[in-house]
Amino acid sequence: MTRRAGSHRVRRTVGNIGQLPWQAVSNPYAPTAVLGAEQLETIHQASLQVLNRVGMRVLNDEARAIFAKAGASVDMNTLMVRLDPDMVMETIATAPSEFVLRARNPARDLDLGANRVAFVGVGGPAFVSDLDKGRRPGSYAEQCDYIRLIQSLNIIHQEGGGPFEAMDLPPETRHLDLHLAQIRLMDKNWQGVALGRERTLDGINMACIALGVDREELARRPAILCIINTNSPLQLDIPMAEGTMALARAGQVACITPFTLAGSMSPATLAGTLVQQNAEVLFGVVLTQLVRPGAPVMYGAFTSNVDMKSGAPALGTPEYTKAAMASGQLARRYRLPFRSSNTNASNAVDAQSAYESEMSLWGAISGHANLVNHAAGWLEGGLTASFEKLVVDAEMLQMMAEYMRPIEVNDDTLALKAIEDVGPGGHFFGAEHTLQRYETAFYSPLVSDWQNFERWKEAGQQDTATRANKIWKQLLAEYEQPPLDPAIDDQLQDYVDRRKNGEPVE
Amino acid sequence: MTRRAGSHRVRRTVGNIGQLPWQAVSNPYAPTAVLGAEQLETIHQASLQVLNRVGMRVLNDEARAIFAKAGASVDMNTLMVRLDPDMVMETIATAPSEFVLRARNPARDLDLGANRVAFVGVGGPAFVSDLDKGRRPGSYAEQCDYIRLIQSLNIIHQEGGGPFEAMDLPPETRHLDLHLAQIRLMDKNWQGVALGRERTLDGINMACIALGVDREELARRPAILCIINTNSPLQLDIPMAEGTMALARAGQVACITPFTLAGSMSPATLAGTLVQQNAEVLFGVVLTQLVRPGAPVMYGAFTSNVDMKSGAPALGTPEYTKAAMASGQLARRYRLPFRSSNTNASNAVDAQSAYESEMSLWGAISGHANLVNHAAGWLEGGLTASFEKLVVDAEMLQMMAEYMRPIEVNDDTLALKAIEDVGPGGHFFGAEHTLQRYETAFYSPLVSDWQNFERWKEAGQQDTATRANKIWKQLLAEYEQPPLDPAIDDQLQDYVDRRKNGEPVE
Repeated sequence: MTRRAGSHRVRRTVGNIGQLPWQAVSNPYAPTAVLGAEQLETIHQASLQVLNRVGMRVLNDEARAIFAKAGASVDMNTLMVRLDPDMVMETIATAPSEFVLRARNPARDLDLGANRVAFVGVGGPAFVSDLDKGRRPGSYAEQCDYIRLIQSLNIIHQEGGGPFEAMDLPPETRHLDLHLAQIRLMDKNWQGVALGRERTLDGINMACIALGVDREELARRPAILCIINTNSPLQLDIPMAEGTMALARAGQVACITPFTLAGSMSPATLAGTLVQQNAEVLFGVVLTQLVRPGAPVMYGAFTSNVDMKSGAPALGTPEYTKAAMASGQLARRYRLPFRSSNTNASNAVDAQSAYESEMSLWGAISGHANLVNHAAGWLEGGLTASFEKLVVDAEMLQMMAEYMRPIEVNDDTLALKAIEDVGPGGHFFGAEHTLQRYETAFYSPLVSDWQNFERWKEAGQQDTATRANKIWKQLLAEYEQPPLDPAIDDQLQDYVDRRKNGEPVE
Repeated sequence: MTRRAGSHRVRRTVGNIGQLPWQAVSNPYAPTAVLGAEQLETIHQASLQVLNRVGMRVLNDEARAIFAKAGASVDMNTLMVRLDPDMVMETIATAPSEFVLRARNPARDLDLGANRVAFVGVGGPAFVSDLDKGRRPGSYAEQCDYIRLIQSLNIIHQEGGGPFEAMDLPPETRHLDLHLAQIRLMDKNWQGVALGRERTLDGINMACIALGVDREELARRPAILCIINTNSPLQLDIPMAEGTMALARAGQVACITPFTLAGSMSPATLAGTLVQQNAEVLFGVVLTQLVRPGAPVMYGAFTSNVDMKSGAPALGTPEYTKAAMASGQLARRYRLPFRSSNTNASNAVDAQSAYESEMSLWGAISGHANLVNHAAGWLEGGLTASFEKLVVDAEMLQMMAEYMRPIEVNDDTLALKAIEDVGPGGHFFGAEHTLQRYETAFYSPLVSDWQNFERWKEAGQQDTATRANKIWKQLLAEYEQPPLDPAIDDQLQDYVDRRKNGEPVE
């Protein structure tokens, strides 16, 4: 995707909803370093020690064999795999520092790495909610609607592997229907589902069909990214190990993301949790590079903490923000693209949901995340995908994208003549300098309401969530399905039908 | 105020409300530079050009005479005062880069400058609001309640010069009653009212009585800070010029803050607006140093933009965030303490109010603001002080303070033994390492609700604003007035009575 041009703020409307156009986003500012150089090195060294002395338990036979073949110490009683520090550093060195993920619309390819930022729709919740029907298990029809909105909201760069579960479909083949919807209803890139080898390969195969390429070509120019969660602490289970290997073998992207909730799945200190997170990520990255040196892989971080009073997960906390920034420092130390998230633990699309999200987003952006997972729609600590939060998050993401547009300083923008012409006590609203940039001078919001109190009251005193409810309905009413070659559509349907009929995956 | 100790997280409760204890806050991270070094210099030079070629209109005779005496070019027809660039830079060089503001409780003195951050309660709105009674003109009784809450909320370091107007009191003497409340109901530092010489001196005189010092001693160790707004563009009116001079003469702090809404009071570009803001600040700073070299003064920034469609002020926008960070760079260029704000344009304590506030706060914090004005309570673009927003903002400020506590990296926090002991697939909740830090491991929130959906639903599905409503009522019920020497109290009452009876101010 090309760097957005100066005209980027000309509002493209989807129907009547004014929003920013599709754009590549880059972060021009220096990342925030919450760790000093020495602290960073201490955490790095400690995590190598953990891998060397403790290791990780690997439940999958093939993965253990791969590690053993590479010279790792494998204990067949405990299933613990221990790695030599030098071997870790040598092995991960083959991982690329950036790569491009293809979309079926080439204008929507995603360039990941360096200072680029991609925003991802929420993935994985069990429930869906909106203001009209409340919170409930989701259906496939609703999942399709949510995917249509992700297509319509320009600021979202990638779909996140299913916004919520389609509970009206059988769990074994649900991912096939998801992929059909992702490909048919969007022309954006989408995440696959790495729960075991078969599901992973289904995503890869359907991406090949959608792009009209074979596996070899897909390996050269990848399209599939999946989230790999280690079972923190220090365990890699069978489905995730299979997913990691299948992705690496196919040259697709494993985003290795330990789910390290400090105080529960990791130590009750940020330093200790970062050590454990880093050890687990490096372990996963090593596996990808042993399977296929040069396979694209990401440093994923999902460190937050539990509420020590109740054990409940706390998200978008100050600890979360610092951990995100520190994780970015670690990822850059290894020259790996970095994934963070937009999280919150609120049960409603209210002030808490927004300030916890902002704390997460600033951790991601100032931490120089290349992929912001769950960037739009996540509610309730990730248990629910909310239609209204999707719109509110899109607003916050648009604001972040605008924040990352550098201030232009030149003779024209310095406006010395305008300042002189308007003079003391004057007004710039009618000045020529103002009129010239009337349309594009400033960010224009999606859901924020800047009316004065009296007008807002007359208009029904709608809060942000209520306005967001109207916006997603309008976006849905105005949604246009991106065209897909009917031959490809047929092939996809045929693939899904065959797989549902029990044909094995290759 | 001393740097908070390691035990800072031990929760001091005001009654049953858990909150962080009073603490000095410092920002250990590098500021975000949104302007390159060359861009910064270009804006600096352009603002000197504006002061040299255009100048500022000064409506006050005495101020013009002071400028003329210092060699400025003064046009008696247009009242324009033009400054030579060298004279500007030489004159502002006497301003201190940091200073301490005294509170009547010495433990609450405010150390301003360097990497320190002080949070200020909202100041100046015309209206007050809460969920029970809605938005209305405020009364003195309500103003006193609001001031009690500012005293009770530990994260607020300074009162902001009256949270809203007490409309049931006569405007000429309202500030005297305000100062009585500020001194009696709080032991924190408070802002004065610089609307003309008399009001400014009343604040200074009452601070002297409260502290038991004379003017000379107060000049050595200042206690009063007032906001000085230039009339942008390029005008200094009579009350603000009087206030500036009275403050400087008394060795108290003028916080020079142009209200530069891009597209209305300044050019429709951030670069042009920063040029104008910078020119106006430097002009005010020059005046303070001409009156009294070495007088404490702050670089205040309040740059946002108007909505170009309606002319309405837009706040907490991406432009606002960038301008705050750029303003911090300018302030540091002159080694002046920097003031920013926490703003939003929302009409309700909803998601918008939170994400706009967060965009403002991150601009302030990553811009290294020393004083975050309106940090708690501001709603509706500053037209209203909200009781609920006060609590929600206190939460956001507490989270920011926690974010600014550096990650501790040492053998104990690295937790290598705990990671080894818990082992793969284990749980840290019962680990010795966890139990040792059970009480203080993580930030514990004021108003955030981390219950799961089912419990939250059972508890009445209260959103953040509803919970904040309960919290301020509880804080108010549990408020304890800090003791004040009855002799001082009498003197204060006597001062106010004499001034209300028409005795002139000295």
